[in-house]
Amino acid sequence: MRRKRQGPYLEHRTQVRVRFQEVDALRVVWHGHYLSYFEDAREAFGERFGFRYQDFLAAGLLAPVVETQCRYFLPARHGDTLEICARLYPCEAARIEFGYHVRRSHADLLAEGRSVQVFTDLDWSLCLTLPELARRFYQRWQGALVVPDA
Amino acid sequence: MRRKRQGPYLEHRTQVRVRFQEVDALRVVWHGHYLSYFEDAREAFGERFGFRYQDFLAAGLLAPVVETQCRYFLPARHGDTLEICARLYPCEAARIEFGYHVRRSHADLLAEGRSVQVFTDLDWSLCLTLPELARRFYQRWQGALVVPDA
Amino acid sequence: MRRKRQGPYLEHRTQVRVRFQEVDALRVVWHGHYLSYFEDAREAFGERFGFRYQDFLAAGLLAPVVETQCRYFLPARHGDTLEICARLYPCEAARIEFGYHVRRSHADLLAEGRSVQVFTDLDWSLCLTLPELARRFYQRWQGALVVPDA
Amino acid sequence: MRRKRQGPYLEHRTQVRVRFQEVDALRVVWHGHYLSYFEDAREAFGERFGFRYQDFLAAGLLAPVVETQCRYFLPARHGDTLEICARLYPCEAARIEFGYHVRRSHADLLAEGRSVQVFTDLDWSLCLTLPELARRFYQRWQGALVVPDA
Repeated sequence: MRRKRQGPYLEHRTQVRVRFQEVDALRVVWHGHYLSYFEDAREAFGERFGFRYQDFLAAGLLAPVVETQCRYFLPARHGDTLEICARLYPCEAARIEFGYHVRRSHADLLAEGRSVQVFTDLDWSLCLTLPELARRFYQRWQGALVVPDA
Repeated sequence: MRRKRQGPYLEHRTQVRVRFQEVDALRVVWHGHYLSYFEDAREAFGERFGFRYQDFLAAGLLAPVVETQCRYFLPARHGDTLEICARLYPCEAARIEFGYHVRRSHADLLAEGRSVQVFTDLDWSLCLTLPELARRFYQRWQGALVVPDA
Repeated sequence: MRRKRQGPYLEHRTQVRVRFQEVDALRVVWHGHYLSYFEDAREAFGERFGFRYQDFLAAGLLAPVVETQCRYFLPARHGDTLEICARLYPCEAARIEFGYHVRRSHADLLAEGRSVQVFTDLDWSLCLTLPELARRFYQRWQGALVVPDA
Repeated sequence: MRRKRQGPYLEHRTQVRVRFQEVDALRVVWHGHYLSYFEDAREAFGERFGFRYQDFLAAGLLAPVVETQCRYFLPARHGDTLEICARLYPCEAARIEFGYHVRRSHADLLAEGRSVQVFTDLDWSLCLTLPELARRFYQRWQGALVVPDA
């Protein structure tokens, strides 16, 4: 990954079942579907912590994805249950940075990824400073942050 | 098909290339993707004849799909170029009925399908009579209708 | 539906969460994704009762879908949890017939559908009689069949 | 992008039409679909220059994707025709590196991306040196390489 984030993070794990139609002619999950798994994980994260698209909209905000990245280590197969671990790294800039780890049965690391979102208003104009909604969100969950070992 | 439509129709053919990611573990196109091909064909039809979602919206109309059907005869494979033939059957009721034929290289019939849409206003309330937009559309293309042999 | 099946059936219910990326510009689930939900339901059914693609393969069989049908009554939206009820109707012919009901929160009926699969050998040659695997499967679960009221 | 490739490249442009079902609730193409566009571009490239999955398979090779990256600048919308420019950067290592640019009507740069594939044998064992197939391919098209300005 370009910038391996090191700071404190808020984490949520969600499970995804590989669908028959997500597997390609080589009998492994087509690589593009991992961005679906990341979206699922982001959504589960948003529901767990109260940080959903709907909450953004209610505050007059959109949060379009402006960057994604994924590295693939081992293939996932039909019937696999995957655990997607999503970590949000709070930051002062007006952006949302997630890191992802995809594991099979809490074991093999299949892939890791990263996404960056920005905040815009409902007319897609970029927010230059961190919106109040995000600031309050970070404060609310300060105590739940995981601080990685030095 | 439940009701094999027999009346005059307006026809448009469009080509679709089978994508790698549309092929499943059995190395054939996963059956659900045919509804994508039908959507593509409907859209190409709309552009050819001036009967697009955007035209509906501009007239205060939506046209949600309320029924789909597909029969599969032969599998499509990665690399195939498919010809989707879409036929619109004008009718007096406030609905849009399409029939579809999927062929490989103008030859083998791989599948045939059918879709029904209704008209609603922008609040999803059902239109009980044929909207003016559709009436004018049918009149405009009356001369282009194909009348099947008896 | 063309042929509303009336006989005894084997039933399994599974839950599906509507993904953000399954919702279209009208903010409802794009109609084609219901075939994904049916596939998910069929797979959950296969796992519950021991009637999976893998079981077919191990017996030298494929079970391609040869017909699908869906009727849409009410739209599903982002964030909805859907219950897909899949009913298998055992029959003497060498085919698998499923019926589906899609409900939101055990309540509103959003859609109903149907799929037909045939059995083939691994070279895609049609099985003309019911394979032993299916016969034994029907016998095994005879006691679990639900007999609808007359 | 992590490593902005600077060397000579082989280029192919392909056009993709945004499908109705690729647009999300915000009426823009859901970001994950760009990996589909990249796959389409890679496939068109492979057909143009003779560097397709089928060619790899015939030589006993697979070429799984091990890394993807995408940056999104402007949203694509329903009805847009996108031009995907794919550039292959030949290298001595046993990997395939592509860069992508997504433009609307040869104008606005909507997104840029990158993918890395490795070569493996048919049992997914990594090739440690550049396969003969790739070496011959690079030699064959040496004269077609575009050398960027210093």
